Amino acid sequence: MIIDLTSGGKMLRPAFFLLFSEFGNEKRSNDDLIPLAASLEILHVATLIHDDVIDDSPMRRAQPTIHTRYGRRNAIYAGDYLFTIYFELISRHLDANADILRNALSMKRILIGELDQMLINFNVNATTDMYLKEISGKTAELFSLSATMGAAVSYGSQEVVTRCKEIGYDIGMAFQIIDDILDFSNSAQIGKPVHEDLKNGVYSLPYILGLESKNEKLIALLSQDNLTTEDINAATNIVVDDGYLNQAKDIAQGYTQHAINEIKKLPVNKSQKVLLAVVKRLINRIK
Amino acid sequence: MIIDLTSGGKMLRPAFFLLFSEFGNEKRSNDDLIPLAASLEILHVATLIHDDVIDDSPMRRAQPTIHTRYGRRNAIYAGDYLFTIYFELISRHLDANADILRNALSMKRILIGELDQMLINFNVNATTDMYLKEISGKTAELFSLSATMGAAVSYGSQEVVTRCKEIGYDIGMAFQIIDDILDFSNSAQIGKPVHEDLKNGVYSLPYILGLESKNEKLIALLSQDNLTTEDINAATNIVVDDGYLNQAKDIAQGYTQHAINEIKKLPVNKSQKVLLAVVKRLINRIK
Repeated sequence: MIIDLTSGGKMLRPAFFLLFSEFGNEKRSNDDLIPLAASLEILHVATLIHDDVIDDSPMRRAQPTIHTRYGRRNAIYAGDYLFTIYFELISRHLDANADILRNALSMKRILIGELDQMLINFNVNATTDMYLKEISGKTAELFSLSATMGAAVSYGSQEVVTRCKEIGYDIGMAFQIIDDILDFSNSAQIGKPVHEDLKNGVYSLPYILGLESKNEKLIALLSQDNLTTEDINAATNIVVDDGYLNQAKDIAQGYTQHAINEIKKLPVNKSQKVLLAVVKRLINRIK
Repeated sequence: MIIDLTSGGKMLRPAFFLLFSEFGNEKRSNDDLIPLAASLEILHVATLIHDDVIDDSPMRRAQPTIHTRYGRRNAIYAGDYLFTIYFELISRHLDANADILRNALSMKRILIGELDQMLINFNVNATTDMYLKEISGKTAELFSLSATMGAAVSYGSQEVVTRCKEIGYDIGMAFQIIDDILDFSNSAQIGKPVHEDLKNGVYSLPYILGLESKNEKLIALLSQDNLTTEDINAATNIVVDDGYLNQAKDIAQGYTQHAINEIKKLPVNKSQKVLLAVVKRLINRIK
């Protein structure tokens, strides 16, 4: 079985880890930095493999998923196996037990986030809080872990480590919300008979804002058993016309703005500039 | 979701861990011993939950399995979650990174063992070596880990730790082979229309010994697509009459005898006596 970690992944988590490793008090050797950066992508891929089994997703990154190619048994064990590789790498390359502990705790929150996802699916009473809690576990915790681990491994001060943790979290939250918004906009623009997620009862933030505002028409549409393309188009129009899409954009901007403010307080160096540029480009995608 | 770790489990791995923790040079506090003992049962339960999802087993320890009660999604994430609890506990209560690393490596072997299992299923060319490799990952590695961790956590000498590792491994191998033999004997004795495993292409050691000896009749019987009760009874009779059951017993005895020899070389104390008694009772079950 071959799991090609390089197939289409953007390696965002390793990249953030390496950027944040520049804010510590000591420059660490690549002998430690590279395996730790890799461990974060491995942890990410492990969760994706299990997610794909659970959702029975046929494709990921334009390739057939592991369980499609090798069966569910191999996919579940492959995910488990990658978890152990993750722990092996961090136990070999992080110094303090405290760091490993922090990692285990963070991974715990990631998995709790996955479980929370169920609370939202097919639930027209889903709230923004539930959504934010879900993407917190699904995305933000791992971004936060990447940033924290980067700052901690290079012996950043407690203040810097805490700041990096927050920045990573905010970037992760913004990243996921913006991804949702782009999915929404793409589907709406090119008139795809899509919003596959919607059919599967997976509501992204713009819809949830409408549901939470007790928008009667939207609730009626989404409460139906089998959504037609017309239903989906009607729901999409409500979300745009009644301002829920813009509300979602404002929430994303709240996270990026907070991240930018905190990045500016970090030690001034090249990584700081890169981070500011990355976050600005992120939010500009939905402007 | 409630995962009742106490429901019917025999807590063998924690028990072995605690016994082996008596062979070190320093008595450790229960504040560390009890969480570490628990971590081994948690790791065991995590693998069982994933195994049950994969095999779609409805029952475990006379209770409905987790995925039967809470769905596959929750079961997979619950297993993942328990893996993280395991790592959290060992990173909190083991001193050296070296220990944690050894643990991660051992867990890796456990998972490789699970993947090897596929090589045997529905394979009338399965060999004893394949079987032993499979149960090594499935059972012996975790027993070995329990023994090693016990000796290491109480600062046993390198010689003692290595010996405990071997003893744990041998006990685990014997335990699984004897379990297989007892399953076989029970099914044969009470004439159950069983050997469910056989129908599912899962061959235990007595059958594999027959297949490996190129027993024509047995191969012909097991190569059929749908096994009838008569087929299974005929296969069972071959395994008993042609001596394959006794061969399997001899292999189990080889492991327990080696374990007994090595236990006798351990520091003389009450745990040594208990271990000797446990291993003798284990092998007496199939005499």
